[in-house]
Amino acid sequence: MPSCFELPLNAIYFNTRFMVYNFNAGPTHLPDAVINEASAAILDWNKTGLSILEIGHRSQAFVDVVEESRQLVSELLMLDSDQQVLFLHGGASTQFFQVPMNLLDNKEVAAYADTGVWSSKAIQEARLFGKIEVVCSSKDQQYRIIPTDFAVPNEARYFHITTNNTIYGTQWQKIPFTSNTMVADMSSDLFSRVLPFNRFGLIYAGAQKNLGPAGVTLVIVREDMLGKIKRAIPTMLDYKKHIAEKSMLNTPPVFALYTCLLTLRWLKAQGGVAAMEQINLKKSNDLYAELDRNPLFHTMVNGEDRSKMNVCFSLDSAERNQQFSAFAKDRNIYGIEGHRLAGAFRASLYNAIPQTYVDYLIQTIQDFTRIHG
Amino acid sequence: MPSCFELPLNAIYFNTRFMVYNFNAGPTHLPDAVINEASAAILDWNKTGLSILEIGHRSQAFVDVVEESRQLVSELLMLDSDQQVLFLHGGASTQFFQVPMNLLDNKEVAAYADTGVWSSKAIQEARLFGKIEVVCSSKDQQYRIIPTDFAVPNEARYFHITTNNTIYGTQWQKIPFTSNTMVADMSSDLFSRVLPFNRFGLIYAGAQKNLGPAGVTLVIVREDMLGKIKRAIPTMLDYKKHIAEKSMLNTPPVFALYTCLLTLRWLKAQGGVAAMEQINLKKSNDLYAELDRNPLFHTMVNGEDRSKMNVCFSLDSAERNQQFSAFAKDRNIYGIEGHRLAGAFRASLYNAIPQTYVDYLIQTIQDFTRIHG
Repeated sequence: MPSCFELPLNAIYFNTRFMVYNFNAGPTHLPDAVINEASAAILDWNKTGLSILEIGHRSQAFVDVVEESRQLVSELLMLDSDQQVLFLHGGASTQFFQVPMNLLDNKEVAAYADTGVWSSKAIQEARLFGKIEVVCSSKDQQYRIIPTDFAVPNEARYFHITTNNTIYGTQWQKIPFTSNTMVADMSSDLFSRVLPFNRFGLIYAGAQKNLGPAGVTLVIVREDMLGKIKRAIPTMLDYKKHIAEKSMLNTPPVFALYTCLLTLRWLKAQGGVAAMEQINLKKSNDLYAELDRNPLFHTMVNGEDRSKMNVCFSLDSAERNQQFSAFAKDRNIYGIEGHRLAGAFRASLYNAIPQTYVDYLIQTIQDFTRIHG
Repeated sequence: MPSCFELPLNAIYFNTRFMVYNFNAGPTHLPDAVINEASAAILDWNKTGLSILEIGHRSQAFVDVVEESRQLVSELLMLDSDQQVLFLHGGASTQFFQVPMNLLDNKEVAAYADTGVWSSKAIQEARLFGKIEVVCSSKDQQYRIIPTDFAVPNEARYFHITTNNTIYGTQWQKIPFTSNTMVADMSSDLFSRVLPFNRFGLIYAGAQKNLGPAGVTLVIVREDMLGKIKRAIPTMLDYKKHIAEKSMLNTPPVFALYTCLLTLRWLKAQGGVAAMEQINLKKSNDLYAELDRNPLFHTMVNGEDRSKMNVCFSLDSAERNQQFSAFAKDRNIYGIEGHRLAGAFRASLYNAIPQTYVDYLIQTIQDFTRIHG
């Protein structure tokens, strides 16, 4: 099988399978070239005669994988040199407690914005480690907006936001200006758009949206924030120890990490984050435009708070929704049901989702409207 | 590509790669049929038109993967019905602290046996959560024996052992009789031999030896041990919450877990753990016999403490070791260097290593002896 980097960009290889249009919220579609390369690496990695699943993680070849991945993250996000890149176990849910465990002493204050289910979970876990002030919440608006009018107390050690709210389809379009250190869960929009990433003290993201498969978590942390608390931290939860071991404190999730590297290389070949942002903008603009003009459908978030990653929409009754669900399924559209807390539909338009998928979904919406309208 | 279960057992498929004999301590070789099936599932999983990397983890198809995996572990190890099976993130190193965090109050006592590097690390982490008594240690014997003469205090909440010591090549052949609840790190020998698994309160094991690829950790815990301490536990570290969510508290490491299922099915097809123990016994007996009779080589562990999984051996000088290292490398033998703390050589003979690999290694040792003896 040829390397994915010898293939034309955007080439689609569905030789062995029928076409499914995957709009799942995550895990979700990865670039076809990455999938082909990952599959081949399981049989024979880089002509070593070994599977990527059986390679020693302390071998130079795999240490190089980790180092290239860390370097590419740094380059693609234009990080400062003291922003350390780590690939950890445990998912973003582990970061909900690991962040305050490392950054916050028991009597210190941290500020959190509550913009959805994942923010709420982060708040709940942080309460075990310090005094948590929820400075704004859109809970009363069913999380369908991003709050604008709030103040962050000066004494807060950090201010935590969730940049994109996967379940409710909202997104912070601008990062709030505050003198506090910013901490963000960027699980569902990191690498999809340009942000001032070097304004953040800590960024974390589960891989399974724009970075790779489930099973690895990216953490970007500014070194000078660490080592300032009195709490004893177990070795595996201590960012400082992970930094000292260059993200190889214990056996890393080798295959997941390797697949992240393939995705990062693919992203760079597409032109990087700025180029990807333009592609993503057109995809979400096209879909929102159809939903706005279509008499049968409506979106669930309006104005500038709309997420470019997760487009939430509905028809005007449960029966109509059921009808469209079956219609879309018949056309091999997968994963557009809304989260059980939000209902209706959600199309996730992560980096690997090509414009052709979006065109196909729009066509499906139009066909449904023509037939059932 | 056909399913691995349509293929004859022990079939070897190296169509696309040259032959490498992998004796790495972990991650290491997986059964060839598992590697082929895992690679195929990345292109098209079960003819769904979707990659296993992009499948939703809440889909029924993947929930079934988790349930079948849990059930197979229970069946293959003949567990009691209250021994809960969990697939978690974080590696065995995370269990070093998660075990005492869940089982031990600050003023309570737990007993530990110190039989190597991994035991020592477990002891170090446990000290953060309670009073740790090291009831025996083979440190003064360079960890080349398993201690026999020790007593475990009655008040100890549990007694922790490391059943196989990967680095030094020792193994507990019998589980000590004690009235205390037994807890064990079985990372490097679980599924390789029959033990009275239902005598344990908690068993944990990183997958990357006998179970699957790196990136997932098996925990088997008896439910009635939980919920008895006063400490607040972050959600993701609380075994009770993982049990309540049937090992799907957050997004699991989907691909690693799926590959574990393939390996568990393969193990069952081989005849299960008892049959595998016989195969493993012959492999290690053959290699130890050659090392014992060969004038140039010697083993580093003697008698019944010898590990059936990791055979540590050496020649009589650093020069000779270097010579054999180059000789073996020339013959495509991979991963037999000893751990940097132990030096010399270590051949790891996990379940997936076929007898043919061991025969080849023995032949290589004999050829070296003939040429350089």
